[in-house]
Amino acid sequence: MFINANDPTKKSWVHIPKNSDFPIQNIPFGVFLTREDIITIGTRIGDTVVDLGAMHQLGYFDGIPLTEDIFLQDTLNDFISDGKKTWRLVRNRINEVFDIGNNSLQNSEDHKSIILFSLDEIDMQLPVQIGDYTDFYSSKEHATNVGSMFRDPENALMPNWLHIPVGYHGRSSTIVPSGTPVHRPIGQTMPKGSENPIFGPSRFVDFELEMAFITTDANTMGESIPIDEAEGYIFGMVLFNDWSARDIQKWEYVPLGPFLAKNFASSISPWIITLDALEPFRTSAVKQDPRPLPYLSQEGEHSFDIQLEVDITTEKGVSTTISKSNFKYMYWTMAQQLAHHTSNGCKVNSGDMMGSGTISGPTPDSYGSMLELAWQGARPITLNDGSERKFIQDHDTVTLRGFCERNGLRIGFGEVSTKLLPVFNSRT
Amino acid sequence: MFINANDPTKKSWVHIPKNSDFPIQNIPFGVFLTREDIITIGTRIGDTVVDLGAMHQLGYFDGIPLTEDIFLQDTLNDFISDGKKTWRLVRNRINEVFDIGNNSLQNSEDHKSIILFSLDEIDMQLPVQIGDYTDFYSSKEHATNVGSMFRDPENALMPNWLHIPVGYHGRSSTIVPSGTPVHRPIGQTMPKGSENPIFGPSRFVDFELEMAFITTDANTMGESIPIDEAEGYIFGMVLFNDWSARDIQKWEYVPLGPFLAKNFASSISPWIITLDALEPFRTSAVKQDPRPLPYLSQEGEHSFDIQLEVDITTEKGVSTTISKSNFKYMYWTMAQQLAHHTSNGCKVNSGDMMGSGTISGPTPDSYGSMLELAWQGARPITLNDGSERKFIQDHDTVTLRGFCERNGLRIGFGEVSTKLLPVFNSRT
Repeated sequence: MFINANDPTKKSWVHIPKNSDFPIQNIPFGVFLTREDIITIGTRIGDTVVDLGAMHQLGYFDGIPLTEDIFLQDTLNDFISDGKKTWRLVRNRINEVFDIGNNSLQNSEDHKSIILFSLDEIDMQLPVQIGDYTDFYSSKEHATNVGSMFRDPENALMPNWLHIPVGYHGRSSTIVPSGTPVHRPIGQTMPKGSENPIFGPSRFVDFELEMAFITTDANTMGESIPIDEAEGYIFGMVLFNDWSARDIQKWEYVPLGPFLAKNFASSISPWIITLDALEPFRTSAVKQDPRPLPYLSQEGEHSFDIQLEVDITTEKGVSTTISKSNFKYMYWTMAQQLAHHTSNGCKVNSGDMMGSGTISGPTPDSYGSMLELAWQGARPITLNDGSERKFIQDHDTVTLRGFCERNGLRIGFGEVSTKLLPVFNSRT
Repeated sequence: MFINANDPTKKSWVHIPKNSDFPIQNIPFGVFLTREDIITIGTRIGDTVVDLGAMHQLGYFDGIPLTEDIFLQDTLNDFISDGKKTWRLVRNRINEVFDIGNNSLQNSEDHKSIILFSLDEIDMQLPVQIGDYTDFYSSKEHATNVGSMFRDPENALMPNWLHIPVGYHGRSSTIVPSGTPVHRPIGQTMPKGSENPIFGPSRFVDFELEMAFITTDANTMGESIPIDEAEGYIFGMVLFNDWSARDIQKWEYVPLGPFLAKNFASSISPWIITLDALEPFRTSAVKQDPRPLPYLSQEGEHSFDIQLEVDITTEKGVSTTISKSNFKYMYWTMAQQLAHHTSNGCKVNSGDMMGSGTISGPTPDSYGSMLELAWQGARPITLNDGSERKFIQDHDTVTLRGFCERNGLRIGFGEVSTKLLPVFNSRT
């Protein structure tokens, strides 16, 4: 039987609130912890969380080649390693079981009591064990803004930028899920006009509005992934906040790139949205001029129309939307990033994560960082409580949201929401 | 009973060849594969490999708090996670069991036939699952040489270099043990005088003579490791060859650092030498001027006198030693690197690896890369077969060796030896 899990007319017997990011057409994958301290793999429909481990044990995935414990794990790595064909079979089966016309689970109160959870009964965890994390720098507007501020507005883009999806390695150990607070980092900086560096709390803590994709095992060491095959190795996407300390970054980053300015924390949304669920929202990427070298050239629609928003919420709970951007503003596509990353034979594993880089749009209200929104402090942002921000203050909460909407179908990412706490009270 | 495992007068009942890197005072840790395809954790005495999993099952570690399967694993991560007190108890016990005066194992042919292997019966594996890998840039001579070549001999060091142990994140997925061949990478480069980049095999493949240290779980996220505690979180060290493609590096690395120029491969020696075994070879680090900020300041001897050598062996088997350097030439110590790395609260896990950066000495015959030894091709190196090298050729084997020698005691690292193969014959 052919299943079109993206059919926008499909309805579920599970209640889906209006404007939910998680209709029956989404079927994201995540890892959650129950009140009984059990960790398992799940999906989400409306505000209901579904225990896929329990579903599997009760036979709902019969006929799909899955190991018995594939969902009884604390990461999605092994499931992702099973490959696209398996992801699709599982997504289609979930779509089928939760279809309003399907009675198998709908009519079994016993099974529902085991399989279904409400949001307040669970805590979302990191969905994958991230082996290696790479961050790209693929928004032309962002690279141009940063180049204008730190170098020369006339030559804002580096000579390689239009030829290479520029990227660099980041730190996996400090990537945390939405809801995990982050401390303001301490670090070494060189204050303007000073002759000697100082050590103390960063004064310019920033967010970066990014998205990240998660890969499956893509190649053996030495082997390249041809660009036309690259999307087949991408499991899905999350929202990504690449926390940055601008003063630390400025002093440390030449010549080997950002290090402590970035690796104190990055935050992700907990549900991975599959490329299959995003399929209806494909769109053309930004036109590339000059045409990339053949190993990076592709035809067709390889970007996605994903609307993005950033809120700052103050300690007293006043929220202000400070930016609206879109993933489609990216100059380099995910396929180009992955093809480039493996062009030298670099091995990519299941659960590896690759960030887009800050996603800035063409207008000042679509910039993806405080650095750009407040233009290095020259144009402070006024929040809804009247206070001003040049960077992020202690006790501010930064929330990124993302969703697609087309022909009455809305597929969303939920959010990544992170509170900035004061400097950690350390051993000393 | 107090055990001084470093006592240079101690002898073992296992034969130790003259000038062996692995006397009874060394006791390195590694992971090996037997001919029966069993992976286990071991140590090495002379040319004999010792199965620690079998030793534990046979009761030789009784009284030491170890889980039953701690050595029956394919990585050392869990053992390293047990902490310094446990590492020391295990090392001392091995030293005791293999002492010439100890008959327990020596007189049991049954146990010896289970526990002991000759080198040709086993294959060494990667000793740890590396979560995150960081590379530093801590040799002043190397940074000065590179700065002189690529920027300005008068201002070779960047302004931050004397204040920060500059480092950047690398790729864990392509770190391989000695003996695993590496392919010449393909990549995008901008040929001198050209207006457009090209894509093809790198023409300037280089080695980098480095060492790397492996950490235990050091902190919770947000917490810093004070410099005076840092060495306690270092399990041990290996030789590290940070393969580099100089033409790819030159085109890609501004502004976010090296990426594809480095992540196609790095090679390590398979035996981790503990800091305890290196204790007799402590020496002062290079004098630092200006004095580092307090969070990086330390008194006492925090470097190690480790002699380093690099050979190139041609396809026909002719070897030439092309460099002799020493770990003590490093400007920044491992403790400073680890304290700096965690100064912002970056979490460090068991099995993380941190490279020193290229270790160049003060004289041209002690430089740690072809880039420096042949000075960007201006001073080709003549090998013992009369051929010349500016960079590494296909089918060349690069071997790094390292050892300490003092008061008749020699503790060594063995070697990391890697053949460069031609470009990978990929799917296309």
